[in-house]
Amino acid sequence: MSSGTAAIISIGNELILGQVVDTNTAWLAGRLSELGIVTTLHLTVGDDEQDIRRAVVQAAEKAPIVIVSGGLGPTLDDVTRQGVAKALGVELREDPVCLEHVKAFFAKRGRTMPDMNRVQALVPAGAQPIANTCGTAPGIRAQLGRATIYVVPGVPLEMQEMFVRSIKPELLAQAGGRALVARKLLCFGAGESDIANQIADLMKRGRNPLVGTTPHEMIIGVRVVATGASPAEAQDLLDQDLAEIRRRLGDLVYGQEDETLADVVGHMLIAAKRTVAVAESCTGGWLAKSLTDISGSSAYFLRGYVTYSNQAKSELLGVPARMIDQFGAVSEETARAMAMGCKARAAADYAVGITGIAGPTGGTAEKPVGLVYIALAGPNGTEARKLLFGEHLLRWQIRDRATKVALNMLRLALLQRQG
Amino acid sequence: MSSGTAAIISIGNELILGQVVDTNTAWLAGRLSELGIVTTLHLTVGDDEQDIRRAVVQAAEKAPIVIVSGGLGPTLDDVTRQGVAKALGVELREDPVCLEHVKAFFAKRGRTMPDMNRVQALVPAGAQPIANTCGTAPGIRAQLGRATIYVVPGVPLEMQEMFVRSIKPELLAQAGGRALVARKLLCFGAGESDIANQIADLMKRGRNPLVGTTPHEMIIGVRVVATGASPAEAQDLLDQDLAEIRRRLGDLVYGQEDETLADVVGHMLIAAKRTVAVAESCTGGWLAKSLTDISGSSAYFLRGYVTYSNQAKSELLGVPARMIDQFGAVSEETARAMAMGCKARAAADYAVGITGIAGPTGGTAEKPVGLVYIALAGPNGTEARKLLFGEHLLRWQIRDRATKVALNMLRLALLQRQG
Repeated sequence: MSSGTAAIISIGNELILGQVVDTNTAWLAGRLSELGIVTTLHLTVGDDEQDIRRAVVQAAEKAPIVIVSGGLGPTLDDVTRQGVAKALGVELREDPVCLEHVKAFFAKRGRTMPDMNRVQALVPAGAQPIANTCGTAPGIRAQLGRATIYVVPGVPLEMQEMFVRSIKPELLAQAGGRALVARKLLCFGAGESDIANQIADLMKRGRNPLVGTTPHEMIIGVRVVATGASPAEAQDLLDQDLAEIRRRLGDLVYGQEDETLADVVGHMLIAAKRTVAVAESCTGGWLAKSLTDISGSSAYFLRGYVTYSNQAKSELLGVPARMIDQFGAVSEETARAMAMGCKARAAADYAVGITGIAGPTGGTAEKPVGLVYIALAGPNGTEARKLLFGEHLLRWQIRDRATKVALNMLRLALLQRQG
Repeated sequence: MSSGTAAIISIGNELILGQVVDTNTAWLAGRLSELGIVTTLHLTVGDDEQDIRRAVVQAAEKAPIVIVSGGLGPTLDDVTRQGVAKALGVELREDPVCLEHVKAFFAKRGRTMPDMNRVQALVPAGAQPIANTCGTAPGIRAQLGRATIYVVPGVPLEMQEMFVRSIKPELLAQAGGRALVARKLLCFGAGESDIANQIADLMKRGRNPLVGTTPHEMIIGVRVVATGASPAEAQDLLDQDLAEIRRRLGDLVYGQEDETLADVVGHMLIAAKRTVAVAESCTGGWLAKSLTDISGSSAYFLRGYVTYSNQAKSELLGVPARMIDQFGAVSEETARAMAMGCKARAAADYAVGITGIAGPTGGTAEKPVGLVYIALAGPNGTEARKLLFGEHLLRWQIRDRATKVALNMLRLALLQRQG
C-alpha cells in the first residue's frame, strides 16, 4: 500500500449490463495521475448492497484513496449509501444540513422536494457529507482503516465538479513523492502517423518526458508527461519538450488540453476585431453551433444561414438558380457563391460556405457521399477547398469533419493575417 | 457462484492512467447480457504481472466465466500472458501453430516477423490458443478451478471478432441457464423522481422484470430487464412491463434504446408530410444541426436562421426593431415574432423561434442566465414557453436543454395533430 495509489469503484447496473460506457473512471484516473496518484485497481459492481460493501472493503485494503462513483440517486435502485455504510460497519443517519440542501435545490426551482429525495440526505454515521453544487445528492467522505473513501455522484458533471472543488485540494495537500506534470498539445491538419513521424525520437519508450499521440476524430493529441524530483524540475523538462514539438509541427498545433478549434478561432477573431457569418448546407447549422458554443461569441458571430433547400440558397444568399442548375448544389461554384453572398449580406469580414453530401443516401458515382466543398470569403478574396471524406464514414463524422476543416481554414486565414 | 455470471478484467496502463476510455467492457457486458449472462464483477488493472495474477485468481473465484482483455501485444509492457500463466500456476510454452499464424500474418503483408512478435506465440501450458483472424495476437482459453478463462486482445475490433467467432458459440452451447431480455424506454418532460414515482411499484428490488431509471441531460431512461426460463417467457414479461410503463407515463415516453428527440420528430414530420424551419438566437444553430442530424431530413427541414444580432433578427425575420427595444431581444414577444417571421418567410408548416441567455455572462437580475423563450408557430397558431434553467448550468447545458425542449414542443404538437 503506497501513498501515491488510488482505487476507483464504479457502481451501476447499467455499467454491469453494458448499457452505458463508463467514462467517469477514465476521467478520475486521468485527474489523479495529474496529481501523481496512480490508480492501481478499478472495480465495477452493480446496484447491490453486498457487492458494494465487498468492493469498498477490498479497495480500502489495496489503496489509501478510494473513490466510489454512482448510485446516489433518490430511487430504490440506488443503494451506494447503504453499501458504504455496511462496509464502514455503521448505520445511516439523516444529515440536517444535507436535507436542507436537497430541499433548497427543489425550492430554487419552485418545487417541493419529493419524499423519495429525502434518502439523499442520509450519511453513514461518523462520515462527512461533501457538498454538491449542481445536483441534489451530496457526496460522502469517510475513513476505513488507513484509507479515505470518497463517494461521488455518477452524473459526470456533478462528479467532476465535486472532485475538482472538494477532493482535489485535499489530495494535493497530502501529496508526497515525485512530481509529475502533463500537458496535451492538439493538432489539426495531418494524420497521426505523419505527426508521430515528425517527433519519433521524442516518443521512445522509457524516455522522460514520455510523449505519446492519440487521435480523436481528426484531432491528434500529443501528450507529454514529465516526472522530476521537484515540480520545477518536472516543469522544466516538460517545457523543453513542448517547445521542441511546437517548433517541429508549426501551425499543425492549434491549441492545448481541451481547447476546441472554435475556442481558438473565437479568441483570434476577438483579438483581430473581425466578424464572421456562415452559410451551411450539409453541416446544417453545426458550424454556427460550434462558433456560438463560445461565451462572448456575439462579439464576432453575426449570423448563420442554414440553406438546406436550393430555394433557400438562392433566396437567402443570392446563389443564382442557373448556377445551381449548371454546376449542382454540391459544387465549388455554389460553395463560393454561398460564402460571397453570405459575406455581403451579413456585412461580415469573413464568411464560410459549405455544401456537400453527408449521406448515407444521396451520393452518385460522380458526386459520392463524403464530397464536400468549403469556401472562405475574406478581406483578400475567396478560397475554396474540395474534400473527399471516405464513404465508410458515418453521416455525423462527415458533418463533424467538414465543420472542423472550415474552422481550420478560418484559423489559418487569421494566422496569415497576423504573420 | 452461479452459472449465469461472468467477470471481466481489463488490462492496460493507459486505462489505469485514464488516457483511454475502456469501451471493451461495456461491449462485452452487453453481449454477455444478451446471452443471459450477468457480469457481476469488473476489474481493471495495469500492465503488471502480479496485479494480473491476483485479478484472475479473484475473478475465477467469483464467476464461472472470466474474460480478460488487453496486454497481448508484442512489446515489453504487455505481460498478460505471464500474469495469466502465474494465476494458472504453469509455465508459458511456444505454440507452433500460433507461431506459424504470427509469421503468416506478416508474410501476407510482405514483411518478415519482427523478433519481438515471437512472444505472441506463447501460451500457458495446458491452455488452448484462440485464433485471431484480424491481428497477430492469438487469444487464450484456460481452466482455473471451475472457471473458464478467456483472454482476448485489447484492440476493440480483434476482441469483438474473437468473441463473436470463438467465444460466443461456446457460451451458447453451455447455456443451460435462464434467458434475459432488456429494453430501455426514453422519456422527456419530467424529472427522474417524478417518473420513478409513477412506476415505483415496478421498481421494487428483486422484482422480475427489474426496472430502473437513469437520467442523462434531461432524458430519463427507464431500463427493463426480464429473465425467464425461455426467451419467450422473458419476452412476455418484458412486453407486459413495457406496455404498463407506457400506459402510465403517456406522452412522456418519446422513444426507446438510442433514439433521439430529433429522430422521433423527423419520423413524425415525414409521416405527416409536414415541413419545418427554425430561427435561433441563443442555441446558435444547435436546433438546425439536431434536425439535420437525421439522414433524409431534406424532406422536411427547409431552412434555418441563426440570428445572433438584433439586426439579423429584424432583417432576416422581420422582428420589428421597436419590439426588440420595448420588450428586449430575450422576451416572449421576440420569440413569437421570430417563429412567425420564420414560418412565413420559409413557407413552412411549423417554425420554431428561440431566444435566451445561455451565459455565463449577459444575465441581469430581471433576465438571468438560463432564461429562454421558445415559440412554436404551427397550422393552428403560435404557442410560447418561458423556461428558467438553473444558473448553475453550463452554457452548453442551457443550449442543449433549450434545443431539446423545442424538439419536444414540436413532437407534442405533431402528436396532438394525430390524436
